[in-house]
Amino acid sequence: MKDKKILLGHGSGGKLSHRLVADLFFPYLKNPILEQMDDSALIGKLEGELVYTTDSYVVDPIFFSGGDIGKLAVCGTVNDLAMLGAQPRFLSAGFILEEGLPVEQLEKILISMQQAAAEADVQIVTGDTKVVPHGAADKIFINTSGIGIRRPGISISGKNARPGDVVILNGNMAEHGIAVMASREGLDLHVTLSSDVAPLNDMIMKILDMAPDIHVLRDPTRGGVGTTLNEIAIQSGVGIKIIEKDLPVTPEVQGVCEILGLDPLYVANEGKVLIFCAAERVDAILHVLQTHPYGKNSCIIGQVVDQPKGKVFMETRIGGQRLIDMLAGEQLPRIC
Amino acid sequence: MKDKKILLGHGSGGKLSHRLVADLFFPYLKNPILEQMDDSALIGKLEGELVYTTDSYVVDPIFFSGGDIGKLAVCGTVNDLAMLGAQPRFLSAGFILEEGLPVEQLEKILISMQQAAAEADVQIVTGDTKVVPHGAADKIFINTSGIGIRRPGISISGKNARPGDVVILNGNMAEHGIAVMASREGLDLHVTLSSDVAPLNDMIMKILDMAPDIHVLRDPTRGGVGTTLNEIAIQSGVGIKIIEKDLPVTPEVQGVCEILGLDPLYVANEGKVLIFCAAERVDAILHVLQTHPYGKNSCIIGQVVDQPKGKVFMETRIGGQRLIDMLAGEQLPRIC
Repeated sequence: MKDKKILLGHGSGGKLSHRLVADLFFPYLKNPILEQMDDSALIGKLEGELVYTTDSYVVDPIFFSGGDIGKLAVCGTVNDLAMLGAQPRFLSAGFILEEGLPVEQLEKILISMQQAAAEADVQIVTGDTKVVPHGAADKIFINTSGIGIRRPGISISGKNARPGDVVILNGNMAEHGIAVMASREGLDLHVTLSSDVAPLNDMIMKILDMAPDIHVLRDPTRGGVGTTLNEIAIQSGVGIKIIEKDLPVTPEVQGVCEILGLDPLYVANEGKVLIFCAAERVDAILHVLQTHPYGKNSCIIGQVVDQPKGKVFMETRIGGQRLIDMLAGEQLPRIC
Repeated sequence: MKDKKILLGHGSGGKLSHRLVADLFFPYLKNPILEQMDDSALIGKLEGELVYTTDSYVVDPIFFSGGDIGKLAVCGTVNDLAMLGAQPRFLSAGFILEEGLPVEQLEKILISMQQAAAEADVQIVTGDTKVVPHGAADKIFINTSGIGIRRPGISISGKNARPGDVVILNGNMAEHGIAVMASREGLDLHVTLSSDVAPLNDMIMKILDMAPDIHVLRDPTRGGVGTTLNEIAIQSGVGIKIIEKDLPVTPEVQGVCEILGLDPLYVANEGKVLIFCAAERVDAILHVLQTHPYGKNSCIIGQVVDQPKGKVFMETRIGGQRLIDMLAGEQLPRIC
């Protein structure tokens, strides 16, 4: 069926739906739980504290430099679980397909999901597919939800930043947003731009082995580092000071941001995490990060201060201070 | 903001996103877990065997006689959990909104979700909202996933139908599909048609109190009773015989089906369940069903036989037999 297109009947619940599942979804995603084929998946008893999350993915284009909507849908939800100190275990996947989507494209996306799920060591155990008429959706939207198990002895929350905490970022900003934007606009920029989309749970678990008392973990996705820091400042009732010269951005991404009039502080990342920890943990954490493939360019970008509460400000290159507000409007629609 | 429309910025992750959550989602859906406002929801320890499911809802129109996409999104997922003998506990909700959607419509949908969640005694604990440009989606799509806890001592699966089992249905067929179809086409039929969409978990739990050894529960949604019976016949490797004169359909729905050229056996239900049980349990189950608001018109529609394995056949009114196949193509796109 690889040269075929998705038909409305593939979402009917009838014969074509069953064939789509059997011929396309199962070869890539199957596992004993998914194969139960009942209305729900029986996942059994889980010891420990559970963490639960959901995200819908509507990225445009669905294939971009460094990834596609399938890799994004698995990594994004895996990362949201890891941000609470949880080991991701089970994912659901809900597909909304536009009539006429080439089956070959869906297959590529399923292969990406399979690979990302294998790397993150999660199982996709329950799913659903709807098909809408041509024009009622744009190619494919994917929702993933996820269940993880929080490591014992962990207390991580956006509320836990404290004055004196150091703020670490595991690498260069804005790579996902700029890669998607360049793919969407067909920009020929003579530079290599690639999304940073990646499952971060392995790296996070290794950090927690060394420093289980981390205060805050959060991935700066939509809205970028600037918006995410504002959320944490508000939730924790603290000030956050960042240092402009320490913010990691590649010259290529910086250049494209300047051409497009974007501030990398507000551009989405999909393989980055902001880590807030006590100063005495910094060396151990940076060591773990810098020896991990997803943390090689990790660095300190700022610190938590007492005042002004709920605000983020930046020490600029010329020694001034600038307030960093939350993203106000919309820079880049359909970035994830 | 009630006279406003949804903007791209409401999906940015920035200020407008936070305002949408604070001003619209929280007033209707909030609970202590949702209010944690971290990347994931910490739901804590859950005793017992967990059941997990997901469904995306793309129904057109989003408001129809007897319900709307919000009620559908809660009930559909609650019912999928109940079909495995699980008490639904936690839902996620992922919204994909089209730029320009009137906020007033979103608010109505959230009110429906709140009411359905309250009736089903579930909490919506984690959510996500994406906004796509006008024309990239049709008004609103909702994904809900759900976690339930299976009652101890239960073994319900589509694989468990056995020859001799009686097949019960809790009321009239095809009401959801026909109500949506009539609303979509603006049919003025001089009859009252209303979707049967409802959360069935309370009724299911009461049945399981009386008959914990039920073999199969399944809700005949997309593809209708005909397709769902075929799934069970295949999964269990049995034959299923249904009796045409015993199939419950109101004269109004039957009439509309005839006008539209639809077979009610293949039209979607959203408040119905097929129950397979040993003959000696039938009286107790029918008693519980017929005294429950969602089971008043319950009746026996057929039985499980040894042959032909994997097939469904109907004893017709004139005494003949007819093979009932799975729905082949697509009768009614975007019915749920």
